[in-house]
Amino acid sequence: MDIVIIGSGNVATHLATALNEHHNIVSVYSRTIKNAEILAGKINSKATDNLKELPSKADVYIISVKDDAVSRISEELPDLKGIIVHTAGSIPIDVLKKHPEHGVFYPFQTFSKNKALDFSSIPVLIEANNSETLQSLKDLASSITGKIYEVSSTQRLMLHISAVFACNFVNHFYFIAESILIKAGLPFELLLPLIDETAHKVHASSPSAVQTGPASRNDKNTVQKHLKILQNLGENDLAELYERISKEITELHHHKKK
Amino acid sequence: MDIVIIGSGNVATHLATALNEHHNIVSVYSRTIKNAEILAGKINSKATDNLKELPSKADVYIISVKDDAVSRISEELPDLKGIIVHTAGSIPIDVLKKHPEHGVFYPFQTFSKNKALDFSSIPVLIEANNSETLQSLKDLASSITGKIYEVSSTQRLMLHISAVFACNFVNHFYFIAESILIKAGLPFELLLPLIDETAHKVHASSPSAVQTGPASRNDKNTVQKHLKILQNLGENDLAELYERISKEITELHHHKKK
Repeated sequence: MDIVIIGSGNVATHLATALNEHHNIVSVYSRTIKNAEILAGKINSKATDNLKELPSKADVYIISVKDDAVSRISEELPDLKGIIVHTAGSIPIDVLKKHPEHGVFYPFQTFSKNKALDFSSIPVLIEANNSETLQSLKDLASSITGKIYEVSSTQRLMLHISAVFACNFVNHFYFIAESILIKAGLPFELLLPLIDETAHKVHASSPSAVQTGPASRNDKNTVQKHLKILQNLGENDLAELYERISKEITELHHHKKK
Repeated sequence: MDIVIIGSGNVATHLATALNEHHNIVSVYSRTIKNAEILAGKINSKATDNLKELPSKADVYIISVKDDAVSRISEELPDLKGIIVHTAGSIPIDVLKKHPEHGVFYPFQTFSKNKALDFSSIPVLIEANNSETLQSLKDLASSITGKIYEVSSTQRLMLHISAVFACNFVNHFYFIAESILIKAGLPFELLLPLIDETAHKVHASSPSAVQTGPASRNDKNTVQKHLKILQNLGENDLAELYERISKEITELHHHKKK
């Protein structure tokens, strides 16, 4: 297929690179021409900072920009014959409705600009405004991954919320752990086997079945000891967060005993 | 070395199994004889539910019981010539001080009873009341892992707190994500590539350097959209937690722009 990439951020870059293996990326747009040129240079494509100059006969136009810019870009696009999709978790399909064929092509992963990823294991979630467009998007997705899911805009939004907890907030907790280790004069690498095993465990078991730690055992002595240390370190906000989440875990794992 | 295992829980089981490859586990104690027998049966050892009946001439006695039982077990033990250690993250070395040679042998990992682990990549944190005992514990640790760290009781306690955030609380967030997906009618497996990549990223980068998501971009529209969905689902506590952590992330990642 002939594909136009609109955007030059993390998702646009990873997606363009993966699609470029099997398709022809005919143009890359960014409102900053330099960013368009950087991505276009990587995949032997053309760069533009003018939406009106995009090729009019591509098969698919992929809008991969910040969530709050998707709607504006869609409106500014000229009338096009191809399929217009966006890649945003929290934006409904309807913002693209001015285009006869439109949909969503949401690769569900956390992307870092300078870190290569094996796209074949990344789920791609698709939605389309008609069955023909849906089939085209399935074909496109199947060229880069074996994991294709058809989900509605509402499901996608809820999935996005779940990802905020399982990825963004989890990473924030890694950060909190690191900040405590720095105060203890210990290296973060100490935590890596534990972090890996925690992620690994939920491949085979539901998270609630493998919950461990003082809160799940209702070990009040240890919880109180930890709270006191955090307070002594001047980390009152952390202590409050620790107490709150511990309470939730204890309630979840001890509700049967009440 | 001749080793006695006091305890039959997750840590005791994994540790006894790993040590049994290179040492002689001469006895397993549990206050419930059946649990002692189960573990002893796995490693061809003897079982007892009486601390007074433990062999008196073992080289190392490993107390691996619930944190709040370590002190009591230590007091109840008869006078012994060997090294007495415990395996608890949050208990200071001093609770063992009645024994002439004592220390801590803390394998830093999350253990599930029925899941085998490669012990060689698990950090073991040691502490001892004298240099000779320290060397013996180093020798013991080096028989099962290449990752040996000498840490003080205070450092170990802080490490334990960091692990609560990076493991126990992270797993709780996996649980929250799963509960949202269940409401959306979507499978938890969708999240696994994201969970793995989130863990994988912090092997090469500090967590703060790889933070992604709406809060880190200060994308208020998406944050508000997510909050509204959680409230509509009747998940007011979750909404409040989402708001609180998002605020922290935004403050951390946008403080330079203020």
